[in-house]
Amino acid sequence: SYPDYENAAMGVGGAGGSASRYSLSTRSDLSLGSRSSQPGGPLHHPAGGAKSSATVSRNLNRFSTFVKSGGEAFVLGEASGFVKDGDKLCVVLGSYGPEWQENPYPFQCSIEDPTKQTKFKGMKSYIAYKLVPSHTGQQVNRRYKHFDWLYGRLVEKFPVISVPHLPEKQATGRFEEDFISKRRKGLAWWMDHMCSHPVLAQCDAFQHFLTCPSTDEKAWKQGKRRAEKDEMVGANFFLTISVPAGGPAVLDLQEVESKVDGFKSFTKKMDESTIQLNQTVNEFARKQVAGFKKEYQKVGHSFRGLSQAFEMDQQAFSVGLNQAIAFTGEAYDAIGELFADQPRQDLDPVMDLLALYQGHLANFPDIIHVQKGALTKVKESKRHVEEGKMEIQKADGIQDRCNIISFATLAEIHHFHRIRVRDFKSQMQHFLQQQILFFQKVTQKLEEALHKYDNV
Amino acid sequence: SYPDYENAAMGVGGAGGSASRYSLSTRSDLSLGSRSSQPGGPLHHPAGGAKSSATVSRNLNRFSTFVKSGGEAFVLGEASGFVKDGDKLCVVLGSYGPEWQENPYPFQCSIEDPTKQTKFKGMKSYIAYKLVPSHTGQQVNRRYKHFDWLYGRLVEKFPVISVPHLPEKQATGRFEEDFISKRRKGLAWWMDHMCSHPVLAQCDAFQHFLTCPSTDEKAWKQGKRRAEKDEMVGANFFLTISVPAGGPAVLDLQEVESKVDGFKSFTKKMDESTIQLNQTVNEFARKQVAGFKKEYQKVGHSFRGLSQAFEMDQQAFSVGLNQAIAFTGEAYDAIGELFADQPRQDLDPVMDLLALYQGHLANFPDIIHVQKGALTKVKESKRHVEEGKMEIQKADGIQDRCNIISFATLAEIHHFHRIRVRDFKSQMQHFLQQQILFFQKVTQKLEEALHKYDNV
Repeated sequence: SYPDYENAAMGVGGAGGSASRYSLSTRSDLSLGSRSSQPGGPLHHPAGGAKSSATVSRNLNRFSTFVKSGGEAFVLGEASGFVKDGDKLCVVLGSYGPEWQENPYPFQCSIEDPTKQTKFKGMKSYIAYKLVPSHTGQQVNRRYKHFDWLYGRLVEKFPVISVPHLPEKQATGRFEEDFISKRRKGLAWWMDHMCSHPVLAQCDAFQHFLTCPSTDEKAWKQGKRRAEKDEMVGANFFLTISVPAGGPAVLDLQEVESKVDGFKSFTKKMDESTIQLNQTVNEFARKQVAGFKKEYQKVGHSFRGLSQAFEMDQQAFSVGLNQAIAFTGEAYDAIGELFADQPRQDLDPVMDLLALYQGHLANFPDIIHVQKGALTKVKESKRHVEEGKMEIQKADGIQDRCNIISFATLAEIHHFHRIRVRDFKSQMQHFLQQQILFFQKVTQKLEEALHKYDNV
Repeated sequence: SYPDYENAAMGVGGAGGSASRYSLSTRSDLSLGSRSSQPGGPLHHPAGGAKSSATVSRNLNRFSTFVKSGGEAFVLGEASGFVKDGDKLCVVLGSYGPEWQENPYPFQCSIEDPTKQTKFKGMKSYIAYKLVPSHTGQQVNRRYKHFDWLYGRLVEKFPVISVPHLPEKQATGRFEEDFISKRRKGLAWWMDHMCSHPVLAQCDAFQHFLTCPSTDEKAWKQGKRRAEKDEMVGANFFLTISVPAGGPAVLDLQEVESKVDGFKSFTKKMDESTIQLNQTVNEFARKQVAGFKKEYQKVGHSFRGLSQAFEMDQQAFSVGLNQAIAFTGEAYDAIGELFADQPRQDLDPVMDLLALYQGHLANFPDIIHVQKGALTKVKESKRHVEEGKMEIQKADGIQDRCNIISFATLAEIHHFHRIRVRDFKSQMQHFLQQQILFFQKVTQKLEEALHKYDNV
């Protein structure tokens, strides 16, 4: 079974939903939030500062991600299992280097209509989401705890794949409309990243989650048990990876190291800038909801005050102006409301995207750690061969398996860059389109007000 | 001669120019400012709370505006002087009641190119403004002190006319560009109200000011002396007013009283609402220059930070996005600047208008006071006649002269409403047009940014 996170009260990191969205948050809060929103199965604790002091023999640090992920066992040739054809994951060489082979049957999956449901004769309430995967067209209903179960399986199974984080848990206010709406959007983003990933999209546990009829309790449990008994997890997962055969398919170690190091710097910088952008956007939203709205409505109020004073003069030549100024006051009130409503349209989606990417950025240190661990093993084995302490065949085996991890890591990095460019492009476009619409609405309000003066 | 206010250091009320324009100001500051910006000749101190306890004999309160303005002397029949045809001021009955007869030769006068000039071999510097009245087309150069001299003459001469206040004096920073530009605008507003007023526009001192060649020192001094020796000032001014002859031309006392009381309430309410609007607009301008600019530029900064992080990935499919996000950052910087520049275009002119009207609103209590004083004299004289203490002819004379003051007061009130509707209409239109232009510029910046994503 799996821990029922949804019903467990969470600490600081897990709490805080849409209600506190525009409250002041510091950089450290955000870092904490993005990290602690990672439920993490037992195999997936953040590596933190733990340094691997790997030798070709077993690593002494049993808490190293390289060890826990199964990366070490695989590199040392200790993994074994039968890989079915359907389980094979191909890395191919694209124009930018290693890439995951594209999903030949791409699909998407909508998440709509979160509805409150009850069981045990109303003793227990929960929110169910309607999922409709495009490749089946069959609706299934899932709860957050189902997503959470799936997430645990994926994290366990795929050591060098960045499994998108689920939207954060929340102890209180689970049935509040804002929270539900925010979670639905978070789950939709999560789903988008799941479907976009060639490996994750095709994995059995995910397909079971997407396609098992909600009413067939038995089939659901069978699929769950199958996923939980999956042997091709961790070290064995690497066995399922096929890399291109032949000479050019062996990656140059130094080149890989330099690429991975470059990506490490990239993620660090991107992490910093997304944290900063998130802070800015959050603060900007807060200002629009509070300060900007207030300022425009104060202007509206003052114009209405002026029109009320002017209304004391009811001469025919004055009446039209009085009404026009009153209307102008109302227009500024309305503009204040527009400012307050706007963040939902443009800034909130930006924050949703940033939250998703902060999850990925939190995943990559572990992925990089596994790859680094494998590289270290290769270097050590070469030294051992030179020193006559190791047979060349064994060292070649280590290098081959490290090559597989490098292929997978670079494919994952490539995938990250691809979806990053895709997502930030579309999100920036959406943001700007919404901002433009907003300022056009403001302009329209002002034009309506201006026309009231035409016949004064 | 006249006191050289321009060179005299002023107190709190007179100081504070454009530099402090967007600084926080309280309601009481503003009230103070609008009142103390009234240079006021010796005959024109604000009446304040001084109540007239008028009797038909001379008023005991020598500081009452009714007394100082010459209103009392006129009502009691003590004014005498020869009224030349050219000095006659006609009040006519329009569809809304008494009106000043329109100026048959309406004109305007531009005030441009304030330039620093020196005299006494550079020992003394001053700013000269180029005035071009439309009815002569001849440019004359005038200094603030000339405006100030004229203002003093007008206030002395016209007890029931609201002479527009000059823009406030300033002790320091007289040669700073912002101050000069602000003063020029203030003088232009003042000039507009002078030219719009049928009585003020046609008065000799003003015409001398507008038309006397700047180079003809002698003619200037002669005109000045003539204006200063003008006998048709104060009490005698009322002699120059012609009202329509015949029965319906005698205004009903109660109706006049009710109209004047209504206007008194109107000015009180308008004063309150313009003070409030001025505060709001000032604060709104301050927010745009500081807070709004900062918020948009913080967004710009964060976008640029993100683009800098993204630039660490130089793969072909990433470069376009990086540039587009960098451009978006610049667009938000530019929008921040637009916000900061905007108040000069739309809010400052509103504040200029409000300042001018706060001057008028500060004038009316005195005007109303004169009219009230005259009404009181009529009531008293009627009582005295009933009590056999006064001849009916004398009482009729008092009533006739009060009627003249009532005609003039109502004409002045009517004029105020007319220019108020005209000015606030055009200023609100200008304000809204500028706001629309502003939001269109913002929208355009955003559209430019959006298009950068087209080929990403």
